[in-house]
Amino acid sequence: MSLLICLPDSFEPRILCSSLQSLDPELKIEIGPENVQNPAEVEFAVVWNHPQGLLLKYPNLQAISSYGHGADGLLADKKLPEGVPIVRLTNETMANWMSEYLLAVVLLKRRQLLEHASNPEFVEWGTAARHPGNQLGILGLGYLGKAAAKVFLQMGFDVAGWSRTLKQIEGVSSYSGRDGLTEMLNKTDYLVNILPLTDETLNLLNTETLSQLKRGAYYINVGRGQTLVEEDLISLLDAGQLSGACLDVFRTEPLAEGHPFRKHKKILITPHNSCSTPPEAVAPQIYENYKRAISGRQLLNLVDLKHGY
Amino acid sequence: MSLLICLPDSFEPRILCSSLQSLDPELKIEIGPENVQNPAEVEFAVVWNHPQGLLLKYPNLQAISSYGHGADGLLADKKLPEGVPIVRLTNETMANWMSEYLLAVVLLKRRQLLEHASNPEFVEWGTAARHPGNQLGILGLGYLGKAAAKVFLQMGFDVAGWSRTLKQIEGVSSYSGRDGLTEMLNKTDYLVNILPLTDETLNLLNTETLSQLKRGAYYINVGRGQTLVEEDLISLLDAGQLSGACLDVFRTEPLAEGHPFRKHKKILITPHNSCSTPPEAVAPQIYENYKRAISGRQLLNLVDLKHGY
Repeated sequence: MSLLICLPDSFEPRILCSSLQSLDPELKIEIGPENVQNPAEVEFAVVWNHPQGLLLKYPNLQAISSYGHGADGLLADKKLPEGVPIVRLTNETMANWMSEYLLAVVLLKRRQLLEHASNPEFVEWGTAARHPGNQLGILGLGYLGKAAAKVFLQMGFDVAGWSRTLKQIEGVSSYSGRDGLTEMLNKTDYLVNILPLTDETLNLLNTETLSQLKRGAYYINVGRGQTLVEEDLISLLDAGQLSGACLDVFRTEPLAEGHPFRKHKKILITPHNSCSTPPEAVAPQIYENYKRAISGRQLLNLVDLKHGY
Repeated sequence: MSLLICLPDSFEPRILCSSLQSLDPELKIEIGPENVQNPAEVEFAVVWNHPQGLLLKYPNLQAISSYGHGADGLLADKKLPEGVPIVRLTNETMANWMSEYLLAVVLLKRRQLLEHASNPEFVEWGTAARHPGNQLGILGLGYLGKAAAKVFLQMGFDVAGWSRTLKQIEGVSSYSGRDGLTEMLNKTDYLVNILPLTDETLNLLNTETLSQLKRGAYYINVGRGQTLVEEDLISLLDAGQLSGACLDVFRTEPLAEGHPFRKHKKILITPHNSCSTPPEAVAPQIYENYKRAISGRQLLNLVDLKHGY
């Protein structure tokens, strides 16, 4: 019986390993598929960016855990073992980091701090400069979207959200469906995209939908790059329909050198760092799912294969 | 009986006038000393950057209101009428704007967004970049300092504050005195200066005190420029003792063209716009003090001349 950790080195698999080991010194953990002694022993796998087809090698796999909030990368593997349940992570620290990033970006825009930083010779003086809009729209009201909504409500923003199914969240206007999306976009000053990548969300943000935002709106993407049609965003920024964008995720990562986003004056880009998975913090949740998987109990944060998240 | 408004045009005296007029259509309001018909009629004056000695012209003045949170500019007039009480403004909108500015700046630093903005060709990828420090120190725990403390507590920061007298604020470690200042600075990652300008605070932030901050700390000044020794800040930034600074107030405003702050890579400057006085929002408070003044009742937000604020 063993637990396989298959993560890029930059995700610090050894820290996850020692955190799991401190929870259960008896647990056999193998780091990297190349170090697996006996494939038949692997019962649980924690993966991110794993080689396609890898997971078919373990005949006794009871469950697979994505090492992040999203499962789209895992599900993109067309050779997954049939019938093996897939789980993903939800974690308060991750939600806090992402909410913090989103608030940082929205306040940066509202208080025009980038403009001041890039124009230190300014001569106008003394009137509080605040972007007037106060309406936030959040695409995706799952664990991360709800946490962000709470932080923006605390800061006095008006908050609306759109998701596959209507949600009941205190203080948040909830929308769903295509008409609901239009209705929300029409009143939105700051659009925050935290959507998972699914068949429904692929290319959802395009000329048609982004044009429905209030003129001068600001777009932020921390979900998945593939939900945005990149050329459409650039056209809307150049036309002045949108006033700016902050992008943390891209169709292809790392973003290519010389990609038009890199030097666009209205775009702030960050290297997919709005949040990352803290190994110490998620180890208990992974270990809990491991125990549940090997004893056949209901798993936490099970991915719904029909909806893709 | 009249109320005199003496403000720079950029402070929109006409909006204040119409807001006051809507509270009391009978109130006689005069805008600008040059338009006063009968100096003996002036019973209340709202001022900002008034000409020295102006207020001696009104023999029946019952009270003077500063048109901002600070009264240092008013008190700098060495020819003030003796015995006429001075009040200042406190206002929730102003406190919210300032708290928002402070949070924007601290999160900007924590999430290194300016660094990303100035280096859009970055190649490192994917690890959440967060400045590790979590300890905020607030100099000045009056109305504005308390409001800021609350916002930072909500966002999960550890918050301490230093003020002339010890304060009881839930969740905030309170310090006073020179030893208390040292003790607080020693543990501070982000120092927020909201101090009023008084004999005690003049030049308080200098090589000695700023060196007591944790190495790599970040300094923010939204109080008054004269509390900071400018050359000392530059030396500490250049030596790497401090990692950066955001300055909204300066010893001389507007800041001179070519001032070393303008092009320093570790300094973000803004044009004294962390908050400004919203005329509509403060009109009721000014009108209330007007009524109290002419009927000899206790005034709101009376300035303590001994302590200078």
